[in-house]
Amino acid sequence: MSESDSGTPLAKSFADWICETDEVPADVRAAAKLAILDALGVAIAARRVTDDRLLSVVTDGFVEVPPTESTVIGRPWRTSPARSAFVNAFLAHVLDFDDSSGDLAGHPTAVVLPAALAVAQRHGATGADLLRAHCLGFEVACAIGRRLNPGHYDSGWHPTATLGAFGAAAAAARLTHGDDRDAVARTIGLTTAFAAGLKSSFGTLAKSLQVGRACEAGVLAAQLTGAGATSNLAAFEHRQGFVRVFDRIEANNIDAVLPGRWSLTHPGVIIKQYPCCGSTHSAIEAAYEHGVVDAATVEEVVIELHPRRRVHVDRPWPDGGLAAKFSVQYTVARMLLSGAVALDDFEDARVQEPRLRTLLGKIRVADLEGATDERFEERYGAAVTVRTTEGSRRTFVPVSLGRRPGEMLPADRIIAKFERCTDGILTPDGSAALIEAVLDLENLESAGDLFAICAAAVSAHA
Amino acid sequence: MSESDSGTPLAKSFADWICETDEVPADVRAAAKLAILDALGVAIAARRVTDDRLLSVVTDGFVEVPPTESTVIGRPWRTSPARSAFVNAFLAHVLDFDDSSGDLAGHPTAVVLPAALAVAQRHGATGADLLRAHCLGFEVACAIGRRLNPGHYDSGWHPTATLGAFGAAAAAARLTHGDDRDAVARTIGLTTAFAAGLKSSFGTLAKSLQVGRACEAGVLAAQLTGAGATSNLAAFEHRQGFVRVFDRIEANNIDAVLPGRWSLTHPGVIIKQYPCCGSTHSAIEAAYEHGVVDAATVEEVVIELHPRRRVHVDRPWPDGGLAAKFSVQYTVARMLLSGAVALDDFEDARVQEPRLRTLLGKIRVADLEGATDERFEERYGAAVTVRTTEGSRRTFVPVSLGRRPGEMLPADRIIAKFERCTDGILTPDGSAALIEAVLDLENLESAGDLFAICAAAVSAHA
Repeated sequence: MSESDSGTPLAKSFADWICETDEVPADVRAAAKLAILDALGVAIAARRVTDDRLLSVVTDGFVEVPPTESTVIGRPWRTSPARSAFVNAFLAHVLDFDDSSGDLAGHPTAVVLPAALAVAQRHGATGADLLRAHCLGFEVACAIGRRLNPGHYDSGWHPTATLGAFGAAAAAARLTHGDDRDAVARTIGLTTAFAAGLKSSFGTLAKSLQVGRACEAGVLAAQLTGAGATSNLAAFEHRQGFVRVFDRIEANNIDAVLPGRWSLTHPGVIIKQYPCCGSTHSAIEAAYEHGVVDAATVEEVVIELHPRRRVHVDRPWPDGGLAAKFSVQYTVARMLLSGAVALDDFEDARVQEPRLRTLLGKIRVADLEGATDERFEERYGAAVTVRTTEGSRRTFVPVSLGRRPGEMLPADRIIAKFERCTDGILTPDGSAALIEAVLDLENLESAGDLFAICAAAVSAHA
Repeated sequence: MSESDSGTPLAKSFADWICETDEVPADVRAAAKLAILDALGVAIAARRVTDDRLLSVVTDGFVEVPPTESTVIGRPWRTSPARSAFVNAFLAHVLDFDDSSGDLAGHPTAVVLPAALAVAQRHGATGADLLRAHCLGFEVACAIGRRLNPGHYDSGWHPTATLGAFGAAAAAARLTHGDDRDAVARTIGLTTAFAAGLKSSFGTLAKSLQVGRACEAGVLAAQLTGAGATSNLAAFEHRQGFVRVFDRIEANNIDAVLPGRWSLTHPGVIIKQYPCCGSTHSAIEAAYEHGVVDAATVEEVVIELHPRRRVHVDRPWPDGGLAAKFSVQYTVARMLLSGAVALDDFEDARVQEPRLRTLLGKIRVADLEGATDERFEERYGAAVTVRTTEGSRRTFVPVSLGRRPGEMLPADRIIAKFERCTDGILTPDGSAALIEAVLDLENLESAGDLFAICAAAVSAHA
């Protein structure tokens, strides 16, 4: 293209990498499987808060079919690949409880997995195909994020949606087009035409809807390309292409974008242990270390946070469940009162409980003393000091579990979270079967069986 | 919202205007009806170049139904409102033959009308409802364009898609939500989450696909809002909202965005007479004024253009039909040889005709002598000089027909274009019935009848 930079266009470089990469290292697959299990659990838990009418708009009504043909996670509903991708990504993200990645500055599994699932099912792919496609999509989204962040995030884009669409496209393209490099490249090019999503959607359903639409974009791009759609293969680095238009930066050194390491393990995917803003997690862990308190004896609680986190989670009087997810005071109070921070703690009514409000009135938030940006442990650490009639005790957690680079939340805690998420929705036997299927995904004969197991596991009382 | 500017959010101001505006002036309606007729004709003509497999991906297969229930323009196919909007907008734009607006710096009818049609049909609206909703959507898209252009266009966004989505949303919201201002405002807010589209898609099918998806976005936003979706009402002027994130400009004086005049008549909608880039049109008209030439006697043809147009249409040797649409040499040569520039002149094989290539070799393009940006007549004018063995003659057309502010292409030429576009696809009687229905749209009992008339008009040989 005369209007593009010289050299191999990025969409083609990505296509080469996507088509060439047949083997995913074992430790990367292990991390991906735990993240996939986590995403399924969170999506199933979303059943508690989602409005069926909303889902029905996306799928243009539901076709009730035998559970083995279902393509909406945890429901006996069937729809097209593109729309199942939309709905499942929406479900995986709507609780703010899904995993995240520092490279992406967003939530890769929620936007990549549903695309891989939908297309794998349509094409009768194996579990191993699904797992590989998911890993490739995850890495493509994170690789672009690594190159464009923090500027991309800071300028107001929602990378889960804007960049996640390329991860969804990469996964869908590999499963749709196999090793047809030209078709995969055209899919990536076409995705630049559909990529969208703003941070100003945060705090509303628009946030998870734009993630759903981004996932749909990737699937749609792969399908349209298969039906002959053309796109600009230089649409990333073109002078009016994705990089310059979205980020107003030069697109040179674009080779640095290509996956060089596996983001799934380096720095690693972050699995959330609490269904609230990640910036509250270290403080919650510090409160957990402290142990449950008798609210009557508490005189003051001081939460110390790094200023970078304090700026968006110092919210003393949240007025509803969604605001409470972004309140370090509320989340710490919950942990101190009950020893847990659970999904139903973010129902609007729970936020108004008198006992809880009384404790909120005794909480003060301060900057973590002497914390600098340079010392990683402090940047991500938090301290909680509780002063009671019986004395004072400070607990400091340097880095929240699962946030240390390369360190993943232990598998047993991820499995326990899955069980909590699906409790009352899946039968215990069904839950166990789903865990087993996901953790042995390489050996699942048909990726579509995941939906079947999932649908069969739904409790009669759910 | 604490994070937004003070004052009424733009989404609410638009919602107020959309809900309050019941009467559209007669001259505005007259212009809109001609533009609607033109868009339908262009969409029907697109049948010649579109691949059914591509459309089938968007609609997730087709349901063959009796013609009276059809929602794909000119086809006996039914799908959901959102997907019919996608397909019809794609069809209306794929030939580069649809109308345009200087305010939008894009093509308003192609992206607004299909949204209005789809939702009007679903809700059983009258022709008058449809016409009003279309006019409101057209004006909302153009009003935003007036505020953000030329920066928005120049920075690489494709306004037909990025801003057109708001036009589609406005039309869909008025038809879906009536005078429910809150729901209309939430629809506009949600559309910021979906808006997308890049100019680097030009020259590929990604261009018309992103216009289709933008139209779908507006319909989907209205439907999701009706099912309870929330969005940030300040998503336009929020510090990480649409205006600042897309255009990196301050969102103050945002009131200036609101429709103050009817863009449909001031400056007016531009109806294309030739199926190629608008910047070639004045030169084509000058060639038309000159008259048909005997190629054997031609020694030289000089085309003079304003430098702003020359930069993207000075293309001496187009290698295919799509490139020929952006070649002033090719389009002028066609007019000089045959006295017409028609759809089939842009088939790839026609571009290689020896007689045509010989004439191309005698054409030279130059800057229009003494042209400045200040003198409107010159900025949009073009001259063609033909030097033959018998002498030399220069014809200058100051402003191409339909490009003078407030002046629309005469109705008879718009109708003649419609007849050329639909020739061989619609029956003559059917074509006449459709023209009559559109030009009397205020009195059409059911907007869905437009589809019925359209489907019934399809020739058995088409």
